Amino acid sequence: MPTPADTLARLRAAAPLVHNITNYVAMDVSANALLAVGASPLMAHALEEVADIVRIASALAVNIGTLEPAWVDAMQLAVDEAVRAGKPWVLDPVGVGATPYRNATAAALARRRPTVVRGNASEILALAGVAGAATKGVDSTRASSDAKETARTLARELGCVVAVTGAVDYVTDGTRTVAIANGHVMMTRVTALGCATTAIVAACLAVTRDPVDATAHALAIMGVAGEMAAEQAVGPGTLRLHLMDALYQLDDATLRARARISE
Amino acid sequence: MPTPADTLARLRAAAPLVHNITNYVAMDVSANALLAVGASPLMAHALEEVADIVRIASALAVNIGTLEPAWVDAMQLAVDEAVRAGKPWVLDPVGVGATPYRNATAAALARRRPTVVRGNASEILALAGVAGAATKGVDSTRASSDAKETARTLARELGCVVAVTGAVDYVTDGTRTVAIANGHVMMTRVTALGCATTAIVAACLAVTRDPVDATAHALAIMGVAGEMAAEQAVGPGTLRLHLMDALYQLDDATLRARARISE
Amino acid sequence: MPTPADTLARLRAAAPLVHNITNYVAMDVSANALLAVGASPLMAHALEEVADIVRIASALAVNIGTLEPAWVDAMQLAVDEAVRAGKPWVLDPVGVGATPYRNATAAALARRRPTVVRGNASEILALAGVAGAATKGVDSTRASSDAKETARTLARELGCVVAVTGAVDYVTDGTRTVAIANGHVMMTRVTALGCATTAIVAACLAVTRDPVDATAHALAIMGVAGEMAAEQAVGPGTLRLHLMDALYQLDDATLRARARISE
Repeated sequence: MPTPADTLARLRAAAPLVHNITNYVAMDVSANALLAVGASPLMAHALEEVADIVRIASALAVNIGTLEPAWVDAMQLAVDEAVRAGKPWVLDPVGVGATPYRNATAAALARRRPTVVRGNASEILALAGVAGAATKGVDSTRASSDAKETARTLARELGCVVAVTGAVDYVTDGTRTVAIANGHVMMTRVTALGCATTAIVAACLAVTRDPVDATAHALAIMGVAGEMAAEQAVGPGTLRLHLMDALYQLDDATLRARARISE
Repeated sequence: MPTPADTLARLRAAAPLVHNITNYVAMDVSANALLAVGASPLMAHALEEVADIVRIASALAVNIGTLEPAWVDAMQLAVDEAVRAGKPWVLDPVGVGATPYRNATAAALARRRPTVVRGNASEILALAGVAGAATKGVDSTRASSDAKETARTLARELGCVVAVTGAVDYVTDGTRTVAIANGHVMMTRVTALGCATTAIVAACLAVTRDPVDATAHALAIMGVAGEMAAEQAVGPGTLRLHLMDALYQLDDATLRARARISE
Repeated sequence: MPTPADTLARLRAAAPLVHNITNYVAMDVSANALLAVGASPLMAHALEEVADIVRIASALAVNIGTLEPAWVDAMQLAVDEAVRAGKPWVLDPVGVGATPYRNATAAALARRRPTVVRGNASEILALAGVAGAATKGVDSTRASSDAKETARTLARELGCVVAVTGAVDYVTDGTRTVAIANGHVMMTRVTALGCATTAIVAACLAVTRDPVDATAHALAIMGVAGEMAAEQAVGPGTLRLHLMDALYQLDDATLRARARISE
């Protein structure tokens, strides 16, 4: 079974092209996180080219944070092409639970065979239709452990891997569940780090076939880098700064020593 | 009368959801500033959901920086819903004075009963229709004191609070005028800090009812954080970095000691 | 013949308004780079105002990174107005070679008389129609020297200046070719620094009439600032941070001592 260090080494060797259809807030930090860790990011959303981009990319990340109809059309076209071409794709249902439009969009995308769905606890509960799961905007109001069982059910229902991120992250295909206990609470004070994590999940899926492993490795990479950054940070400004450096500097030995993945 | 420290404490306790319909340049720094200071940002602009978002948010910030017709429609829908629901909303008329389209859009929004209008001197003069007030793009060509009297007239005309920011900031409802003498000139070399300030005004309006006080407190918070950042900065890169940390670290004692608000 | 230090001094004295129609990923870093170096950035893309903005701006930068039809229409309107008004404009054909839509858009814009086209080697080769030049998304797969001769041919064909950036940058009008050997390889790990460079080229064109000189000076300014930043950086996070400070701090003596421009 490959380790996070194996995935990271392969990612850096391959520098996979990751196609992102993501929200405006997340674009800068997602592109920078992908470049820092060793992938090659591309943001493109025009109906005129998204299918072409999917065909040259190694993975696709779709994020509904600042959704609007034209972008949702492009997302659907891109994910259908990804499924057709056998490329992995990740859904980040940002803020699902907040509005009917967001709920309908997330549900429609989730039915289009994502490889992985990644969200916070509120989002995973809302996507699964759990009553009273409404998010507070895009920040979770629930602990990740509250959504662990729901994630398993949702994974079986959608036929994909579901990742709930939080103090502890859970990754499940409905049968096997892996917990990742890395990261730092100050990461919640930097915008779009969840979105950037989704982008890194896509990058790892491009180089590690098993989607539970690939997702767990991505979360460990982001979590360990976040811990390294937090050790040098006095606030969210320096946290984001050092996180970008840590994704770049992260080496095998550190990742092996610090990744806390348990089945 | 509440102090800036009272507003900051309430903001951090409540972590109000702030809905932003803002420009592409400002999204990252606005979301990060809101998270750093203790609020919960959400960016959403689709006609299909803006009214729903306003209903779950505690305040709305509308910024015309990278306006286009579809976004302006969403702004109008959102602000009308905010007025209907009694939620505070802030208008940032970025670059008004630069083009007829921008002038018409800013004027139409300003008539829709904003709680606060925040702009630089050129923008406030242009919004008030002062001849020869044309901005140089989005940067002011005038000192804030040049727009102080115009701000008072405009506040009475629009029936709202008007804030002119610059070396000294002025906040007025047309009768009462408060001056805030915080901040640092290097802040003008970091993009969208005015926009981020507008977002923090919205956050403060969510927790402090009087809009003159709430706005003055927001400007003092941003100004003091900017001064703290400038003490550690050697250029605009480090200024923005430390500003995010300072918004997070800012404590009661420092805010009380450094806020320079005068009636 | 003016030196890079002359151009920088004029830029800081004039603080030219630079109109950017650029991609979502690049907006923040481009605006910050322009402000740091001393220019006044403005981002605007609505058909309703782009021509008006061009008329008040000193230069225009057009970047197709996250293109879509409505934005391409605005780009065409803006560049036609720039040509009509005799304002310099720069084309950044991001990712040309990746999709037919991107190829058609870049080709159509390139025919509209840009003052300068700036791209990486893959992009310049693709724009020139060299077979097999397809880019890997937005990152170059080729060395800049591989595109040096193609750039000369393309410059003659388009009647403009072409800049190929990479380990060594080449700037040519088809007859005269200048090489700039500044910069640092870690700059490729920060998103949109090429786009920010394009924006600085536009700023320099606003103050230095000869487009080969202006472009070479812009590339030297960005390259020297990048080297200064790299000396303090341990990864792409700190590189971007210190780059913004270096653009602000860069002085005549340092620029004279470090700029490596050769005919």
